[in-house]
Amino acid sequence: MPDRIDVGVLGATGVVGQQLVSMLEGHPWFRTTWLAASERSAGKRYGTLPWRLPKPLPPSAAGITVSPLVPADAPRIVFSALDAGVAGEAEVAFARAGHVVVSNARNHRLDPLVPLVVPEVNGDHLSLLAAQQRERNWTGAIVTNPNCSTVFVAMTLAALKPFQPSRVLVTTLQAVSGAGYPGVSALDILGNVIPYIAGEEEKIERETRKILGRAGESGVDDAPIVLSAQATRVAVQDGHTALLSIALDLAPSLEDVAEALANFRGPDEIAELPSAPSAPIALVHDDDRPQPRLDVSASNGMTVTCGRLRRCPVLGYKLVALGHNTVRGAAGAALLNAELVVVRERRLRTPPPEALCRTEARVRDTSRDTLSPA
Amino acid sequence: MPDRIDVGVLGATGVVGQQLVSMLEGHPWFRTTWLAASERSAGKRYGTLPWRLPKPLPPSAAGITVSPLVPADAPRIVFSALDAGVAGEAEVAFARAGHVVVSNARNHRLDPLVPLVVPEVNGDHLSLLAAQQRERNWTGAIVTNPNCSTVFVAMTLAALKPFQPSRVLVTTLQAVSGAGYPGVSALDILGNVIPYIAGEEEKIERETRKILGRAGESGVDDAPIVLSAQATRVAVQDGHTALLSIALDLAPSLEDVAEALANFRGPDEIAELPSAPSAPIALVHDDDRPQPRLDVSASNGMTVTCGRLRRCPVLGYKLVALGHNTVRGAAGAALLNAELVVVRERRLRTPPPEALCRTEARVRDTSRDTLSPA
Amino acid sequence: MPDRIDVGVLGATGVVGQQLVSMLEGHPWFRTTWLAASERSAGKRYGTLPWRLPKPLPPSAAGITVSPLVPADAPRIVFSALDAGVAGEAEVAFARAGHVVVSNARNHRLDPLVPLVVPEVNGDHLSLLAAQQRERNWTGAIVTNPNCSTVFVAMTLAALKPFQPSRVLVTTLQAVSGAGYPGVSALDILGNVIPYIAGEEEKIERETRKILGRAGESGVDDAPIVLSAQATRVAVQDGHTALLSIALDLAPSLEDVAEALANFRGPDEIAELPSAPSAPIALVHDDDRPQPRLDVSASNGMTVTCGRLRRCPVLGYKLVALGHNTVRGAAGAALLNAELVVVRERRLRTPPPEALCRTEARVRDTSRDTLSPA
Amino acid sequence: MPDRIDVGVLGATGVVGQQLVSMLEGHPWFRTTWLAASERSAGKRYGTLPWRLPKPLPPSAAGITVSPLVPADAPRIVFSALDAGVAGEAEVAFARAGHVVVSNARNHRLDPLVPLVVPEVNGDHLSLLAAQQRERNWTGAIVTNPNCSTVFVAMTLAALKPFQPSRVLVTTLQAVSGAGYPGVSALDILGNVIPYIAGEEEKIERETRKILGRAGESGVDDAPIVLSAQATRVAVQDGHTALLSIALDLAPSLEDVAEALANFRGPDEIAELPSAPSAPIALVHDDDRPQPRLDVSASNGMTVTCGRLRRCPVLGYKLVALGHNTVRGAAGAALLNAELVVVRERRLRTPPPEALCRTEARVRDTSRDTLSPA
Repeated sequence: MPDRIDVGVLGATGVVGQQLVSMLEGHPWFRTTWLAASERSAGKRYGTLPWRLPKPLPPSAAGITVSPLVPADAPRIVFSALDAGVAGEAEVAFARAGHVVVSNARNHRLDPLVPLVVPEVNGDHLSLLAAQQRERNWTGAIVTNPNCSTVFVAMTLAALKPFQPSRVLVTTLQAVSGAGYPGVSALDILGNVIPYIAGEEEKIERETRKILGRAGESGVDDAPIVLSAQATRVAVQDGHTALLSIALDLAPSLEDVAEALANFRGPDEIAELPSAPSAPIALVHDDDRPQPRLDVSASNGMTVTCGRLRRCPVLGYKLVALGHNTVRGAAGAALLNAELVVVRERRLRTPPPEALCRTEARVRDTSRDTLSPA
Repeated sequence: MPDRIDVGVLGATGVVGQQLVSMLEGHPWFRTTWLAASERSAGKRYGTLPWRLPKPLPPSAAGITVSPLVPADAPRIVFSALDAGVAGEAEVAFARAGHVVVSNARNHRLDPLVPLVVPEVNGDHLSLLAAQQRERNWTGAIVTNPNCSTVFVAMTLAALKPFQPSRVLVTTLQAVSGAGYPGVSALDILGNVIPYIAGEEEKIERETRKILGRAGESGVDDAPIVLSAQATRVAVQDGHTALLSIALDLAPSLEDVAEALANFRGPDEIAELPSAPSAPIALVHDDDRPQPRLDVSASNGMTVTCGRLRRCPVLGYKLVALGHNTVRGAAGAALLNAELVVVRERRLRTPPPEALCRTEARVRDTSRDTLSPA
Repeated sequence: MPDRIDVGVLGATGVVGQQLVSMLEGHPWFRTTWLAASERSAGKRYGTLPWRLPKPLPPSAAGITVSPLVPADAPRIVFSALDAGVAGEAEVAFARAGHVVVSNARNHRLDPLVPLVVPEVNGDHLSLLAAQQRERNWTGAIVTNPNCSTVFVAMTLAALKPFQPSRVLVTTLQAVSGAGYPGVSALDILGNVIPYIAGEEEKIERETRKILGRAGESGVDDAPIVLSAQATRVAVQDGHTALLSIALDLAPSLEDVAEALANFRGPDEIAELPSAPSAPIALVHDDDRPQPRLDVSASNGMTVTCGRLRRCPVLGYKLVALGHNTVRGAAGAALLNAELVVVRERRLRTPPPEALCRTEARVRDTSRDTLSPA
Repeated sequence: MPDRIDVGVLGATGVVGQQLVSMLEGHPWFRTTWLAASERSAGKRYGTLPWRLPKPLPPSAAGITVSPLVPADAPRIVFSALDAGVAGEAEVAFARAGHVVVSNARNHRLDPLVPLVVPEVNGDHLSLLAAQQRERNWTGAIVTNPNCSTVFVAMTLAALKPFQPSRVLVTTLQAVSGAGYPGVSALDILGNVIPYIAGEEEKIERETRKILGRAGESGVDDAPIVLSAQATRVAVQDGHTALLSIALDLAPSLEDVAEALANFRGPDEIAELPSAPSAPIALVHDDDRPQPRLDVSASNGMTVTCGRLRRCPVLGYKLVALGHNTVRGAAGAALLNAELVVVRERRLRTPPPEALCRTEARVRDTSRDTLSPA
């Protein structure tokens, strides 16, 4: 694969950063050539740092010397798995320096000019990048993916959009990997439930509305859906479970709802993305599914599994949605966003056909808005 | 305590039965003299059977020879911790034979003539016992307590009754002890969530309406509250967490709601019941409470702990309620019901004062409705 | 693959049976054509029965109608994942009827004429099959693999055999999947340790000596190793951890021991077995490894991971061994044994003819060569 | 209780510190008047800091303003639940300033002049305090209790001392509370085993020999027992399980061993200590006991529960010992040590005068009797 695109990872030593490094191994389009982390790890070989995934550390990544969090020699596309404490400024610095930052951090998600994207749902929000570059004078860009639980809620509601969801109550049972490492103390969660995750409920409520909204010239008109979230932490390693009650204004039959979930697909361009699952939602029919243990790894963790669809006496419809929080809800979400960015850039540049990487400095120089479709 | 009342336990070998035996130890009014279980255990000394509670088996119970599930020599008051598979017929047989069956089983809870009681909430439903004895020609009676999760939901809504709760969404995260022994397989629940408990959601929805309803001559008029429940099993030993969203028609302030929860007390007679906590609801204010690990044993497991009271964008109010499922949600609920029955019987008989137990055969012969207040 | 060998699975609905069905999917030599289980499941389509593995049920197996536990139309090679309660008689019935029973059940493991085999360690014990057929008048055969924990202990000691292990103390921390389904109650194991598994310690002590022993005409001379086992159950889904203290009479250096573990390979024929890992033992060097979460799936669960090799003040050497109990310790162990049987049979059938095992050519000529297909 | 002794706690905000504060509540001899912690907490009211025990925070402690870690106004007796990172210097500073530091930290345990005490086992080691004060010119003193697991191992071996234990292999399965807070990451331990705890094996091996040794003028002659430990972390909240194989040179019968364990008592003075359990060891006979869930709280966590006593083919005897790591293994151990110090001091002060420990009366006369209050 001689013309794979070099990519880097900001925050490569955390839970999401490691997941990204793992998912990038063998990627058909991308090649990890640069890894960055905080001062403590910078200068060390990546392979000497603690690796916490059950899958082995990719040998190619092991040999990379960890860079500090400065643009310098970073490749054009960098993923950000940074903690919110440092992501805000660091990502802007990279965008200003010409890098496309595909970020999992929360800092810029609600910035009016930053697209908050789930490719199957609102890939068209990438149109904001034109305004972003224009208004901010960035030669690069920032693209974000939602909070982990939000992905699963937004995906489910996107599938039900034809029925006009208006009010949604969601309770989440979230896995410990969602809190990073060391994250949740074992003393707090073994045999326990913590009915609170700082900031999580607000993220689910706000981000979902933005994702399902309509992107305009200078921002997104939030979708007119009223959401209420209750977030809990449970003793699960990977996999967030979301229990939803939904009011659908068009009052479809349960069969129609089931069909909409099972047949939900993103726009055609999704089929080109190598990390996209064949169906973003799988609908299961056993009473006791979905379960983290059995369903979290569906389609390598990229599919949201829905089940227990039934009537809700209060809001009309109830169901359970489950997703892999560090894959579809974080690293895989960012990866898919990066793939979408690349597809959009390719399309812009053709015809005449051009090599994606080698010649793109020039393209960017001349266009200054290559990231936004016409 | 020479005049303690002899009591028995049907289903004494299960999780709830053992909890009952443990809670009856040292009880100021009751003395366990009779224990019954299925054929497999009948005839054996109770102390030779497996004991699964962290608290030691009471020595007095250890020496009791387990009886089969037939009235025969059982004392007048028997608790039933039987499985639903056998409780239905067995409890009727005991009621017909003159026993007051204080049951935790689900079988008769929705029988129009069987009171489904949480003493702090609807002790007045014991008035159904008169009709029950009259219609069924039982010389005994059946009194039931609700499903474990229902207790916590009903208690919370009872405290909010002044504000007219009309619609309620509740998601429960339930402990494995709620499924009895052996109950849930470790393979199914370790590091997992099961988003389904057979029959649980219906129980929460129906039983709550009956408890909050108004008892009449021949049954209960359900409270006009629309409930929707989603029940899950989590890897917790003891303690069910319920996350509620509630519409209150009178639209109180959050302060008023907080005050109503914290100050909720049952009717005055509750103060006489030795197992009643000083307050049936404790309201906590830390963001991350209540938690099973920290709050399940509040007031020896008899208090429901509420917290995280806040606005719900969809229904108006959100909060979390937590209770000990095998204590306040089962054994302790039955115990409290038995204490209430005894208090009511005492009140009926005074003056002139009479010995509670020794002389009550005559009382029952002459009145045939000693269990119901005038 | 037109000439794959049809195989069946006895006890196909249990934890090990399902693991076998899953591992046989896509096997280069075998094709699952027949599944059998107890009366309760017989007659049903396999795909309608509960499937409890995270991996999806193979579609080809889903369509098979479950047979009762009788030889009838079963293929010549059948795996047995039966419970010990029924395995004893059923396996003999199949062997008598001409089937090669490759069993994971404990019943016949210590039968002097039944080989108890770990291919990398004692594949030559298959020589017992000649005597087995002769003495028992079976036209089929029974081959067994060890108890799950025993595999990991025996593999480790086999690697150290050159140093003459003489005394071994082993403590195991065993996963719940080792107890089958429903197996361990969640109430018993959540946040707990059970320091007892019925029969387990005896199995580890006895089976290891047989595996490491020398097979003769009519049985195995046990290896002269004194073993003492302490078995515990812990709250782990998959993966048994064994902590060993070992006396090695030749007193090698730690470096020599490390090298022996890392370089351990079975005899050359092992390389032909499709399920054999490239190395049966992986030696890791991080202080805190091996761990079930990180190491259980090494080489698809077929490699035993050793680590923490160090001096033991009492016996000389200490180390930790970890293996996947339902794969390398059960289903994968049986699969590997079946592959070895097939390799031996193939070799027998190819001119110049060779003994299945070196000494049994004559025996097999007179016994109608029942182990090889016509 | 007008004459209760004021005590303080160094490191009052950690897991062990909180356990100490909880156990001191209502103590018949001690009254908590002073709490100290690191800079971050100093100056705050104790009741405003996070409290992580299921038992409620004692109201009297809640009102105490947390002091920094300097002697200043601290009472004469201070418990130390400090982290090893700060305990070394801080404890010396307090001892030098005249305080009796009853420490749970590891820093000074192996100091030849610091007694490492389990009152039932080696209370006479307090005799080292005379030399400690003389040699170090401290007007106070440092007394330590062992590492959590060591307590359970040492107690068990002390009971077997009459049979001359010579070689001991111990494997521990340790609870997460032993690592403090936040301590172990949930990601690391949920559904997992970590076969390593830094420094733990050395502590068990060395501290046990000192505790069982003989105290002389200037140190302790270690007991001539060869120990080998393997320590693991498991997903248990509280309660360390130790599996022991023991060589006893006098080769007693199993009955004799059982009797020695069940009847083990410390010296007579132990009966005066209010926190001492009636028996330091409980011997249970069910095959599957002791278990953390069922046995950790025996005698309020102060009793070590032994079980599964049987022959070991390698060393002679096997058994399982379980103790509460933050109670008997930490806070309760320190509390018991403080009680013992007080008993010894009281005895010193009552005519006819007696030595604190038999040989040190003279020493203490010349050293201004710093261990006894005026």
